[in-house]
Amino acid sequence: MLQRVNPLVGRTLMRSNLVTVMRYNSSITKSPTAIVFMNMGGPSTVEETHDFLFELFADNDLIPISKKYQRNIAKYIAKLRTPKIEKQYREIGGGSPIRKWSEYQAAEVCKILDKTSPNTAPHKPYVAFRYARPLTDEAYKQLLHDGVKRAVAFSQYPHFSYSTTGSSINELWRQVKRLDPNRTISWSTIDRWPSNEGLIKAFSENITAKLNEFPEEVRDKVVLLFSAHSLPMDVVNTGDSYPAEVASTVYKIMERLKFRNPYRLTWQSQVGPKPWLGAQTAKIAEFLGPQVDGLLFIPIAFTSDHIETLHEIDLGVIGESPFKNKFKRCESLNGSATFIEGMADLVKSHLETGELYSKQLPLDFTLGKSSDPVEDLSLLFGDHTKK
Amino acid sequence: MLQRVNPLVGRTLMRSNLVTVMRYNSSITKSPTAIVFMNMGGPSTVEETHDFLFELFADNDLIPISKKYQRNIAKYIAKLRTPKIEKQYREIGGGSPIRKWSEYQAAEVCKILDKTSPNTAPHKPYVAFRYARPLTDEAYKQLLHDGVKRAVAFSQYPHFSYSTTGSSINELWRQVKRLDPNRTISWSTIDRWPSNEGLIKAFSENITAKLNEFPEEVRDKVVLLFSAHSLPMDVVNTGDSYPAEVASTVYKIMERLKFRNPYRLTWQSQVGPKPWLGAQTAKIAEFLGPQVDGLLFIPIAFTSDHIETLHEIDLGVIGESPFKNKFKRCESLNGSATFIEGMADLVKSHLETGELYSKQLPLDFTLGKSSDPVEDLSLLFGDHTKK
Repeated sequence: MLQRVNPLVGRTLMRSNLVTVMRYNSSITKSPTAIVFMNMGGPSTVEETHDFLFELFADNDLIPISKKYQRNIAKYIAKLRTPKIEKQYREIGGGSPIRKWSEYQAAEVCKILDKTSPNTAPHKPYVAFRYARPLTDEAYKQLLHDGVKRAVAFSQYPHFSYSTTGSSINELWRQVKRLDPNRTISWSTIDRWPSNEGLIKAFSENITAKLNEFPEEVRDKVVLLFSAHSLPMDVVNTGDSYPAEVASTVYKIMERLKFRNPYRLTWQSQVGPKPWLGAQTAKIAEFLGPQVDGLLFIPIAFTSDHIETLHEIDLGVIGESPFKNKFKRCESLNGSATFIEGMADLVKSHLETGELYSKQLPLDFTLGKSSDPVEDLSLLFGDHTKK
Repeated sequence: MLQRVNPLVGRTLMRSNLVTVMRYNSSITKSPTAIVFMNMGGPSTVEETHDFLFELFADNDLIPISKKYQRNIAKYIAKLRTPKIEKQYREIGGGSPIRKWSEYQAAEVCKILDKTSPNTAPHKPYVAFRYARPLTDEAYKQLLHDGVKRAVAFSQYPHFSYSTTGSSINELWRQVKRLDPNRTISWSTIDRWPSNEGLIKAFSENITAKLNEFPEEVRDKVVLLFSAHSLPMDVVNTGDSYPAEVASTVYKIMERLKFRNPYRLTWQSQVGPKPWLGAQTAKIAEFLGPQVDGLLFIPIAFTSDHIETLHEIDLGVIGESPFKNKFKRCESLNGSATFIEGMADLVKSHLETGELYSKQLPLDFTLGKSSDPVEDLSLLFGDHTKK
C-alpha cells in the first residue's frame, strides 16, 4: 500500500504548491472581494471608551435627538457616562472582545470562501465599526488601498434594525460620498439573516451544551430566556423590523430543539426614562427566580460577547441574584465553527445570486427616521432590478 | 365499461351502508371525542351585543381591573359602548360571522378526523365562546348530555396570549369545577399552533390570490401588511407569548412566499389611553399610502372574519383612506379547505401523541395575571409527565 500512497502524497504536495503559486499570481492580478463585517463595535481598550460613547450618542440614526445640537449633547453625555462605562470595561477584562472576534470570524469566513467560491476569490476580510475603531472611514481607506473593486457590507446583526444596520448603511453612504466619489468599489449588502442555518444550528448547539451542565433531573424544565437588546417604543412604533425578526430566530431555534423546554423572548439593556419594548429580561428573571428549577439566558441578537452579556447579564442579572445557583448563561457564538460555516454559506449564496440588498431594505429606509440617510438605496448599491 | 362500473358502484354503496351501520352502532356504544373550538366569539345578532360587551369587560384575564369592582365597572362600560358597537355590527351585516364559521370549521374538521383517526372516532364538533353564545357553560352542558368522556379544548387563536387562550382555559376550569366536579370528561388542550402547515399554506394561498388582483407591474412591490390585534404594553411586559408567536407565523408565511414582497408586522385595535404594542396598522398605512404602489392588509391573528377586519380595516382603514384604490385586504381563512385540513392534521397528531398541553403553558400561567386562575394545570388536564 505504501508504494501506492507515496506517489499520491507527492502529487498532492505538488498540486498544493501549484495552487499556492496560482493564488499568489491571481492576488497580484485579481482584485480581492472584500467581506466587510459591519457592527456597532466596542472599545478594545478602556481608553477608547470615551470616543466610543461620543460616536454612539452622536448617531442620529440610533438616538434621534436633534441634527443641530446632537454633537454637543453627545459630548456632554459621553463625558458624563465615561467613568461608569470605563469601570464596566475594566470589570470584564479591560475592553470589549468584539474586535478580536470580528477579525477572527471575518478571516475564517474568507478562508472558507476561497475554497467554496473560487470565482470570487481571493476574499479579504475587513471590519468596519460604527462607534469604535476601526471606524467605517478607516476600513474604507484600507479597501481603496488594497485595490478592492467589489465589496460586501455584511451586517453582523442577523436582525435588521434601522438603528443598527440602517445606521451602518447610512454611514457607509457618507464615506462613499467622501472617499470614493467616482465609485471605484461596487457594494452590495447582506442586511439581515435571521434564519441562516448555521446561525440557528450554532445557537442550538450552544444551548444544548449549556443545558447539559444542569442536573439531569431538572434539565427539561429549565426555562430558556432568549434575551435581545431592547428598542425604545418610539423606534418600535415606526415599524422597525427588529422585534419580529428576533422572534423568528428564536422560534427557529426552538423548532430545532423540538420545543423540549419552556422558553420566552425578553428584552434587555433599556436606559433612560422613556418606554422601551418589554418584557425586561432582568424583571422576568427576578420574578421567575424563586419559582423555577433553572434558567438559561441566551443572548440572541448579538453574535459575539459584548458588555451587555459579560457585564449586564453575567455580573448583574446573574451575579447579583439570590438564585444565581439556578442561573446559567449560554456561550455567545464567538468562534463557533458551525456559526462561521453558516456565515460563509450565506456570503457564498449572496455572491452567487447577485442580490444587492433584500426586498425589505427599501421599506426599512422608508419607515426609518434619520437626519442624514441614504437618499436612495440604488445610489449606494446600484439598481435593484435583479430578483 | 358500464358493466364493469356498475358492480363497483354497488359494492361501494353496500360498503358505505355497512360503515354507516357500524358507525351508528359504535355511536351507541362508543362515546364521541369532543373537538371543542374555543374562541372569544362575537354577537351573532345585533341584540346580543350588550351581553357580549359585558362578558368581555367583566373578564379579569383580559382586562385586569379589580376582582371586587370589575362586574360593576363592566356593566357601566358595556352600557356606554353598546350603541356604538351595535351600529358597527349593523354596518357589517347584522352580527359577527364567527359562530357560523366556527361551527362550519369544527364540523368539517370532525368529518376529516372520522376518516383519518378511526381510533378516536366518532368526533363531535362543539363551539365554546368566551363572551358570546354558545358560552363555555352551555357547551359543557351539551358535552355532558352527549356522554362525552374525552374532549380536546382546541384554541382557535393560533398564538397563545394569556388574555385570550389563557382566559378560555381559566373559564373552562371554572366550569369543570361547577358542572363536572367528578370529572367525567378528560380534557387536553391545543394551546398554540403558530406554525401549523395548513395555517401557513392557507394564508399563503389567500395572499397569492389577492396579490394577483393587483396590476402585474406593481404586484412584486405591493407591501404586505400583516396586522394582528395589539396588546397593552402592561400585558406585553408580563412576558406574554403572543407577540413573538405572531411574528413566527408571519416569518413562516414569508418563507413560503420566498420573501417576494416587502412586508411588515403591525398591530391594530388599540383602545384607551394606555400604551399598546405598535407600530399601529392604521398609522403605518396612512404613512405608506402616498408612497407605495400597493398595500395588502393580512389579518394574521384571527382565523375568521370578525369586526376588527370587516369594520376596522375594511370600512375604516381602507374605506376612509384617500389611497383606497391602492389598498386591498386578504380574505380571512374562514372556509379554506387547506386551513381545515391543517386543523384536522393538528388534532389528529395531538390525539396520537397523547400530549395534554404544550411545554410552554405552565410558564404562560406562571407569568399571566388573573384574579381566578387555574391553580395547577395538572388539576385540569391531568399529570403532564408524558413527553
